[in-house]
Amino acid sequence: MNELHPRLAADTHRLGELPEGTLLLHRNASLPWLILVPPGGASQLHELPADLRARVHERLDCLSRLVLEHFGSSRVNVAAIGNLVPQLHVHVVGRRPDDPAWPGVVWGADLPPSEWDEPAIAALRARLGPALRGE
Amino acid sequence: MNELHPRLAADTHRLGELPEGTLLLHRNASLPWLILVPPGGASQLHELPADLRARVHERLDCLSRLVLEHFGSSRVNVAAIGNLVPQLHVHVVGRRPDDPAWPGVVWGADLPPSEWDEPAIAALRARLGPALRGE
Repeated sequence: MNELHPRLAADTHRLGELPEGTLLLHRNASLPWLILVPPGGASQLHELPADLRARVHERLDCLSRLVLEHFGSSRVNVAAIGNLVPQLHVHVVGRRPDDPAWPGVVWGADLPPSEWDEPAIAALRARLGPALRGE
Repeated sequence: MNELHPRLAADTHRLGELPEGTLLLHRNASLPWLILVPPGGASQLHELPADLRARVHERLDCLSRLVLEHFGSSRVNVAAIGNLVPQLHVHVVGRRPDDPAWPGVVWGADLPPSEWDEPAIAALRARLGPALRGE
């Protein structure tokens, strides 16, 4: 299990552990915003060992499809930024023309307060299926 | 050779063709900002055929290393967004704590006017090596 950077821990719900890393859900429910934190000490995607890197990319593709299908998003924004949090983490954000940050990006955007409720989080965990282990 | 969305064409210098797509350099020289446009009609990364997708990810890793080494960036931001331009394109942006958008993201940032000169573009093309073909 990954030790999370305090800012990641504070900003997210911990959905569980995938083989490719810890899966988080951003606390702001204005839009579906997943964050994958691969294991190990890498700070940037290209620093990951080749095998893990390939599996992380495949998982990000799966998470993209899941966000589009589960939340009815029309696009997905996938990004590794990390200017503020050096621990490698990759964002998978479902976007729609009616979301409050559209067409801008979510990083740095002033999203209105909104919280996920427990049933929504449970439904997302169920959708992720058996690949997701609890903590 | 890819037909570029007019906005991508207007905002960038065309560096040339890589096996994984057209490589562009954003016209604003405030920071090194590459954009890779994979071939075909995909709009999002997960829609690419598996073989091309894997090669695109490998190329993005190479471009990340190149940006860090060639420009002395301290981090690289890698992102597929496309809220405004539906043609699939992936950003590889070199970042430093002294760049004008730090620590924010570059998308939507108000960067000061700055232009690449021809020698800088030629040096970047040379650094990309024989994988980069002219148009």
